Amino acid sequence: MHRLTVDTPSRRYDVCVGRGLLKEAGALLSQVLPPPRRVCLAADDQVWELWGEQAEAGLRLAGYTVDVWRFPHGEGSKTPATALSLAEYLSSLPLTRTDCVAALGGGVAGDIVGFAAAVYLRGIPVVQLPTTLLAAVDSSVGGKTGVDLPAGKNLLGAFHQPSLVVCDLDTLDTLPPAQFTDGCAEVIKYGVIGDRSFFFDLTEPISRHMEAVIARCVRMKRDIVAGDERDTGARQLLNLGHTIGHAVEKLSGYTRGHGSCVAIGMAAITRAAVRRGLCPEADLGALLAMLEQYGLPTACPYDGAALLPVIAGDKKRAGSAITLAVPHGIGDTRLVKVPVETLPGWLQDALEGW
Amino acid sequence: MHRLTVDTPSRRYDVCVGRGLLKEAGALLSQVLPPPRRVCLAADDQVWELWGEQAEAGLRLAGYTVDVWRFPHGEGSKTPATALSLAEYLSSLPLTRTDCVAALGGGVAGDIVGFAAAVYLRGIPVVQLPTTLLAAVDSSVGGKTGVDLPAGKNLLGAFHQPSLVVCDLDTLDTLPPAQFTDGCAEVIKYGVIGDRSFFFDLTEPISRHMEAVIARCVRMKRDIVAGDERDTGARQLLNLGHTIGHAVEKLSGYTRGHGSCVAIGMAAITRAAVRRGLCPEADLGALLAMLEQYGLPTACPYDGAALLPVIAGDKKRAGSAITLAVPHGIGDTRLVKVPVETLPGWLQDALEGW
Repeated sequence: MHRLTVDTPSRRYDVCVGRGLLKEAGALLSQVLPPPRRVCLAADDQVWELWGEQAEAGLRLAGYTVDVWRFPHGEGSKTPATALSLAEYLSSLPLTRTDCVAALGGGVAGDIVGFAAAVYLRGIPVVQLPTTLLAAVDSSVGGKTGVDLPAGKNLLGAFHQPSLVVCDLDTLDTLPPAQFTDGCAEVIKYGVIGDRSFFFDLTEPISRHMEAVIARCVRMKRDIVAGDERDTGARQLLNLGHTIGHAVEKLSGYTRGHGSCVAIGMAAITRAAVRRGLCPEADLGALLAMLEQYGLPTACPYDGAALLPVIAGDKKRAGSAITLAVPHGIGDTRLVKVPVETLPGWLQDALEGW
Repeated sequence: MHRLTVDTPSRRYDVCVGRGLLKEAGALLSQVLPPPRRVCLAADDQVWELWGEQAEAGLRLAGYTVDVWRFPHGEGSKTPATALSLAEYLSSLPLTRTDCVAALGGGVAGDIVGFAAAVYLRGIPVVQLPTTLLAAVDSSVGGKTGVDLPAGKNLLGAFHQPSLVVCDLDTLDTLPPAQFTDGCAEVIKYGVIGDRSFFFDLTEPISRHMEAVIARCVRMKRDIVAGDERDTGARQLLNLGHTIGHAVEKLSGYTRGHGSCVAIGMAAITRAAVRRGLCPEADLGALLAMLEQYGLPTACPYDGAALLPVIAGDKKRAGSAITLAVPHGIGDTRLVKVPVETLPGWLQDALEGW
């Protein structure tokens, strides 16, 4: 088992990564929030079917009173209504401030449950139990929570650090291949952001060295988040591929996976960087080859005219400027603040004539 | 004009108290969040009618782009649905992270708008423009925001400090007398919590030395909040009268004003303190006389059996214990952590046989 400590201004907590950890989650939690207390275990119907009973048994064994809350699987559940329905369930128990909520599942579960925990009683402890590669390396760590509004993804949310993250690698074995592939995009992203040697390590399939790969991603995220919990500086590096990626995701009506859209976004912004003489063309080649090795898309299905209005409404925009994470090479991504009116030029360089 | 600086771990901001300040709100804001930027000015229909145009003009004059959002007046609006509707309006503009929202009104407006600002884009700046005595001395300062759930008041919320508070005393002149009276309960509360001489100053009607009274309350709140932003220690002193008060408010179906319920709660807990030998009986007499001078109720319309289940579900409960703010004399309130099972005894001492 790998155990990493995340130290943010608002909370210090451990991330545990290893095999067979779900049944030990109760024992691990008891080191942080000792029983007796209530734990509301929240999961979507599909994840519950696969892993719910094991997680529940582990918590009960450690002495917790467990209440179970299920919600329909899929991105469609990531709404204020679902978070509200969880909060109303918690208030019916009632859960108090010393109790806690556990999010068992992927990014959607972690985001909904984390957000409900952030606002119920102005914040109660939450434990993240990621069951997807994407959640393990990204959304379960760092405290970003949120739900979607009709106008866009994650427009409603809060920063709320978990009290513990337990990633049981066994759960990743049951992932549908497409979802696993999706998570690989976020893994590759870490290499492009700041670790060239890690990037090239990924030519060996991730599944063959899963625990080490996840631990390395979590360590990078931990180091970035520790210095910028509120996402006003270096943390924006983690948005690499997300500005264009989110727009693609939105234009697809959220039918494309998040990771696939990030892959498209990373390829696009790296192309723009090459055309502007910021990034060596060989590194773009290496990125495209890596994304293709993992079965991820690299071509953007929309043109600049379609993407532009979506990007201009991106929540990462601040007034008339937007900060882009731009690779200056594999392992050397930098933040570039650009005026909104220069976006068409960036999109043209990113998408046209390749 | 009084100007006080509140310094919390998450934000440092000024509270301005004086006459004619609404039309200067834009100029005051420009010292903190300089134009050009958008300000969404939010108010209920009644407050808008009285003060909306003046506030809007002041903001425009200073160079802000102003969008107006109105909602139906009354406690019934303090729901997740209203906060969500504001967030959806903000996302339709769209407001970005460098823009801001201004809450013009009483506690309900400040709580709803503050909560929406706390969660929209994971937090954007909010300006509080209190127009009631209660909001001026209590809810506009300190960053507690929230909306109600069917199970209770403020069960959904966030800590989100304002970027500026501007209290125009002129707005208090248009308050219905019952609402002014309601606010007096919170003013008296500050004296009971920690300032005996301030308490006895209140024998001179508040309306005759309004600016000094409000500034003194804000200063006390500021000092308490600065040391305990997240309400885990000394800040709970501000809950004096609120444990029983909230229960009374709830049992009345929220037909009774918040301040009146706090008055009932203060009288009740002080009675219990006297009966337990913690507080001199003369101080109870002084409190009851002061509450009566301001036309506030002191008798509780519900018995312990009715109050108990409501209090046991109070969000201030932590596991099997609840922290009570107990006057040990006027100006000397202390926190007492009691097991939930001793509550019936406290309620008996508070309510029976007087």
